[in-house]
Amino acid sequence: MPRESIDLLITGAAEVATARGSTALAGDELGTVGVLEGAAVAIRGETLLEIGPEAELVERYEASEVLDAEGGTVLPGFVDAHTHPVFDGTREEEFVLRLQGARYAEIAAAGGGILSTVRGVRSASREQLLVLLLERLDRFLELGTTTVEAKSGYGLTTEDELKCLEVLAEAARLHPVEVVPTFLGAHDVPEEHRGAPERYVDMVVQEMLPRVAEAGLARYCDVFTEQHTFGLEATRRIARAAQELGLGVRLHADQLTPLGGARLAAELGAATADHLEHVDEAGMEAMREAGVQPVLCPLVPLFLREPQEAPGRALVSRGLAPALATDFNPGSCYLQSLPEVASWAALRYGFTPAEALTAVTLNAAASLDLGARLGTLEPGKQADVVVTDLPNAQHLAYELARSPVRAVVKRGRVVHARGPRPNWR
Amino acid sequence: MPRESIDLLITGAAEVATARGSTALAGDELGTVGVLEGAAVAIRGETLLEIGPEAELVERYEASEVLDAEGGTVLPGFVDAHTHPVFDGTREEEFVLRLQGARYAEIAAAGGGILSTVRGVRSASREQLLVLLLERLDRFLELGTTTVEAKSGYGLTTEDELKCLEVLAEAARLHPVEVVPTFLGAHDVPEEHRGAPERYVDMVVQEMLPRVAEAGLARYCDVFTEQHTFGLEATRRIARAAQELGLGVRLHADQLTPLGGARLAAELGAATADHLEHVDEAGMEAMREAGVQPVLCPLVPLFLREPQEAPGRALVSRGLAPALATDFNPGSCYLQSLPEVASWAALRYGFTPAEALTAVTLNAAASLDLGARLGTLEPGKQADVVVTDLPNAQHLAYELARSPVRAVVKRGRVVHARGPRPNWR
Repeated sequence: MPRESIDLLITGAAEVATARGSTALAGDELGTVGVLEGAAVAIRGETLLEIGPEAELVERYEASEVLDAEGGTVLPGFVDAHTHPVFDGTREEEFVLRLQGARYAEIAAAGGGILSTVRGVRSASREQLLVLLLERLDRFLELGTTTVEAKSGYGLTTEDELKCLEVLAEAARLHPVEVVPTFLGAHDVPEEHRGAPERYVDMVVQEMLPRVAEAGLARYCDVFTEQHTFGLEATRRIARAAQELGLGVRLHADQLTPLGGARLAAELGAATADHLEHVDEAGMEAMREAGVQPVLCPLVPLFLREPQEAPGRALVSRGLAPALATDFNPGSCYLQSLPEVASWAALRYGFTPAEALTAVTLNAAASLDLGARLGTLEPGKQADVVVTDLPNAQHLAYELARSPVRAVVKRGRVVHARGPRPNWR
Repeated sequence: MPRESIDLLITGAAEVATARGSTALAGDELGTVGVLEGAAVAIRGETLLEIGPEAELVERYEASEVLDAEGGTVLPGFVDAHTHPVFDGTREEEFVLRLQGARYAEIAAAGGGILSTVRGVRSASREQLLVLLLERLDRFLELGTTTVEAKSGYGLTTEDELKCLEVLAEAARLHPVEVVPTFLGAHDVPEEHRGAPERYVDMVVQEMLPRVAEAGLARYCDVFTEQHTFGLEATRRIARAAQELGLGVRLHADQLTPLGGARLAAELGAATADHLEHVDEAGMEAMREAGVQPVLCPLVPLFLREPQEAPGRALVSRGLAPALATDFNPGSCYLQSLPEVASWAALRYGFTPAEALTAVTLNAAASLDLGARLGTLEPGKQADVVVTDLPNAQHLAYELARSPVRAVVKRGRVVHARGPRPNWR
């Protein structure tokens, strides 16, 4: 019997591990990961065709290309649900100040923090920002991330916010990593509006949002909801305006203080409430009732040296469906690795490796309304696959600080393969 | 004027950053790192010949090979002062138990912990252990580690301890990573001696140590000094016997309980006291007076989910000279990356990036009595060099969980160069 032609066959896997379905897994279901030992993955075009015993698939299919997992574990492409990757200039000097005892709010009050990156982005050209962004997308890809939510928010003028979103759109056209753009004009109140922040909110609502929506440059709108940036009333106004223009809402909620951002996210019907270090019982319950997903960034308080961490386990126990994210940005978390985020969700929240895997794949994809196409390895879904050198999926969380990624497949194409091992022999 | 011949020239560095000298830097001196912008590094044979302005060195030397740092930062090869790399089988199931709330002592009491790895090592052949060890040394090398202290301690019979040390010696002959072997027969009391642990101490002192010393298989002797393993008197007896045979002493001290291991290390004139999560004031003062170096492993309590961390800053303030290490092992810290250790020494102890750099290079080398040959980039020292993609040395600590290593030079030879970046273009 002639074999069917396919484009790519992934062989040699110790196991293929994946959640299933197209909707976020909540509560006790979070850790429901299927593990297929000795399975192969058949891909045609951009689509995953079949997963099954390797011997059967080798017999059934004639593949143009074979990718050998060399005894490693095969996982769905990772999805990072919260990143700030458009910036020029890093902030290692602030990092050092924090090591010497400075707190986030003190650094921000002294003109550091977000506003120092705003100065850099405003003076950078599109070309500079694009080159830096493409380099960062390469690093995401090397670490197994095939889709990123990516926020603007270091421009804070209409032109600079549009510039950042246009750079994101251009990078998305050029680079295999898929980019879901979020407008975060309400990231902070820029220096020129500090005397009258309500004027800045007017500008976000009346000028920025309509132009962003008209140009189709963002799928979501985010607001950094804190007393020192945008309070509940300003957040509500911005989010409602975004929703009227057809954008979804994600909120930076209850990160540094217990302001009630989680409850507001529920009231607004937001897709996600992110960070949640200071969320209270009422906030968790409201999120559950409204179906708001938590996006947790376990490394952020550790990087900021802030004592309060998100109640990761409590959120799961209440039946919520968390995604995990890096929060990659130059100030509060200079980190691009979702395998590392999985480890720290285990260590800090007590997530099992399986729960952490769901939270960096299916649940993150679902938080971006992409669960029907991304986030699991199942026939009919887009073929976004990470081939690791891990002997089993538990090692994703168990091993710290080494990239396990051997190769990455995006839309059915091998877009990264790790170089040779040490060449001393 | 004819140019002088050399073997290797490292060009294109943003900066070369290194501590200086051959002895450990203590207290306020710990962060004394020299930064040379735009410097090149000339190497002849195994030796670093000169560091100086690139234009001058390019004019002066004719190099057989040029290594382009591509705008990255050049650092001394990292030295890991505390690892347990000889084992067969990982312990991810224990990791998952801890995520569900089990404590170290409970897991050990249930037959898990060190003794579960002992069962694996006893049943493994030399060849199995060697293959696994060489693979782990490759990973150290990829992460920039050019020298490791490596302990036995999962054999716990005379033959199995000798087997592990012989495997270490064989790996050291084959692999470019330099290995400093430590005998850790007193890692735990094996199951067959649990009824009469003093018999096991007799065996360590009367049988194991003489054979290890006679065969020249270890430079140091280590003891896991804890009430549930080897108390102060047993530790003293083993360490004294090792010293009479010409071995140096390193101790696992005050890790899980405040037993007084640090004071004992001082009394013994040990090279190092390691872990020190529970060290007290008297212990720190005794170490300072006796010149014992702390070896700190900042990831271990975090990986074990134990609340107590070592007083890193207090040790420096008292004038001690810490080294930082991974403690790589399958139970309490599955981690091989010293860049990551540098980040967490910053985040947990408040070490500056410069302090952390000294602690993973010169101070770690000095703790192994190798400071005269390793640990800094200076003319006359062995040419062990890490070429990173970091824009400056502060990024070593600032960036989390991505290996910055572009190439590694050991004894003057390029033994690792990272593969190509993502190949989607």
